[in-house]
Amino acid sequence: MTNPICQALGIQYPILLGGLLKVGTAPLAAAVSQAGGFGILGAGAWKQDELKAQIDRVRELTDKPFGVNIVVRSPLAEEQVELVIREGLKAVTTSAGNPNAFTRRLKDAGIYVIHVLPTVEFARIAEKAGVDAIVAEGCESGGFTSLEEMTTFALVPQVADAVRIPVLAAGGIGDGRGLAASLALGAVGVQVGTVFLGTDEAEVSLAYKKALLMARDTDTHLIRFSKAAQRQIKDELRERVSEVLESETDRQELEVDKDHTLDWEEHLKMKKVPRVMSAGQVAGLVKEIVPVRVLIERMVREALDIFGPGSPRAELISGR
Amino acid sequence: MTNPICQALGIQYPILLGGLLKVGTAPLAAAVSQAGGFGILGAGAWKQDELKAQIDRVRELTDKPFGVNIVVRSPLAEEQVELVIREGLKAVTTSAGNPNAFTRRLKDAGIYVIHVLPTVEFARIAEKAGVDAIVAEGCESGGFTSLEEMTTFALVPQVADAVRIPVLAAGGIGDGRGLAASLALGAVGVQVGTVFLGTDEAEVSLAYKKALLMARDTDTHLIRFSKAAQRQIKDELRERVSEVLESETDRQELEVDKDHTLDWEEHLKMKKVPRVMSAGQVAGLVKEIVPVRVLIERMVREALDIFGPGSPRAELISGR
Repeated sequence: MTNPICQALGIQYPILLGGLLKVGTAPLAAAVSQAGGFGILGAGAWKQDELKAQIDRVRELTDKPFGVNIVVRSPLAEEQVELVIREGLKAVTTSAGNPNAFTRRLKDAGIYVIHVLPTVEFARIAEKAGVDAIVAEGCESGGFTSLEEMTTFALVPQVADAVRIPVLAAGGIGDGRGLAASLALGAVGVQVGTVFLGTDEAEVSLAYKKALLMARDTDTHLIRFSKAAQRQIKDELRERVSEVLESETDRQELEVDKDHTLDWEEHLKMKKVPRVMSAGQVAGLVKEIVPVRVLIERMVREALDIFGPGSPRAELISGR
Repeated sequence: MTNPICQALGIQYPILLGGLLKVGTAPLAAAVSQAGGFGILGAGAWKQDELKAQIDRVRELTDKPFGVNIVVRSPLAEEQVELVIREGLKAVTTSAGNPNAFTRRLKDAGIYVIHVLPTVEFARIAEKAGVDAIVAEGCESGGFTSLEEMTTFALVPQVADAVRIPVLAAGGIGDGRGLAASLALGAVGVQVGTVFLGTDEAEVSLAYKKALLMARDTDTHLIRFSKAAQRQIKDELRERVSEVLESETDRQELEVDKDHTLDWEEHLKMKKVPRVMSAGQVAGLVKEIVPVRVLIERMVREALDIFGPGSPRAELISGR
């Protein structure tokens, strides 16, 4: 028995890095791949040369497979698709748009296509469009999400019943319990975003990491726009973070930057609290900033402990 | 190893019937208890004499333990508390209000108190108030819910980390996958509402059951009020149900009422589509109207299959 996602992507654990707009950069993607998961660059806002630079950077950091997330609706999607084909990436996740847009082209180039979607209807459309696998993403997830507001718990089993291709779960997954619960609901793997930002390798400001560390369960909310919604840290927490950072001694700040890699000027800059910090409802599970490898290994071990040794679900977890 | 909830309530499986306003009547509660779960009367809108009649009716139908849900904010809560104490009920769930309101009195009367809540903060308050267990309920659940809109997937592990008393999960649980996922996330049991309405024993109209059968994942939505929200069937589906019921032959209708217990006049009345039909996002999982016993046994078997025989989680499932 093998895990179809691990097999297709050539990875050890069925754990994908979510397509993180702006913050899904090379060091984080490389670290996820290096630790046995599947790192994904959040191409969203990058032009071709920026994306190319990030791809090159990942390749310097790891020889493991990795992918790119393309936001279908983005005006940059077209040139990003060209690039990932030229670069021979292993897999691509497409999101926020019609799966028919790029699937044929990507697949003709031998790229494994995973479409991220919010409802059963879109799962059927994606399967018909010929994608290889799908990510069913609940509204508890950070960043951009659908106005349908299906939750992971309700969405995953209904999507799993509706399609034959492999289903991954996203939204609300922060540890081994979330990985195990996703597999219980019928997924063969997970896509994780928020808690990967609470790692050494994530290239986000000190303030952002501090916000994740301080977040309680209810410290994110969904801002609804006309065509989509965005889950982000509430202003209330932004202000608390700002106060804490101003009052803290240098020593305390440096605890977050355990490796002391930041110089002083950089440090002050990172104290500035970003206007928008995307985060999911599991931000409350971020208790310490750890290396990606620690997070993934802990997640796998915890999920294996939840299932008994005879469970087919346990075999899915480390099932290349 | 035993399940603390099964032990405390004297039940076989850690499956509770949610407190269903108006529709959580005696036949459904009795059937859940009779099948090894814990039936709960949705006392919400009932005066003392109505609740007393329902309690008597459950006792005619089963000698298994059962409970009552009391909506703390309701003006009727006070007299309902008096009654359940006088009647010597096994357990009570309290919801939509301050857990300090009635916990002391109920516990002094030897009643096991389970508080239903939507956030980690309320979980801490409830534990401090001395309740015996809590239900962490996500916003995918049907009926009244909190404006905080935490999802089950994100809420349960964070609540489980925050308190020492047993945690049950609610919201989005429709089958054995949901039961297993709840246990994986750190709950010791579940509270189920929506799919129990899709049973022979549920005293809801034919139209309501038809709506559950026809519902897709996205056919419910949250109506937001000033202090709470209510998840219900969308108008769109209400209209489709109405059309279908008008066009269907009697034979088809009678398929829903498999036992043919309805007389013709009753039948026509039940074709009227209620203005409000509460339902959770798992309404889409209701594929056929079955006896409660079938639903519970299927749920238990499926969850046991998900966990291996050596899993501590499997022991929780049938762990008196």
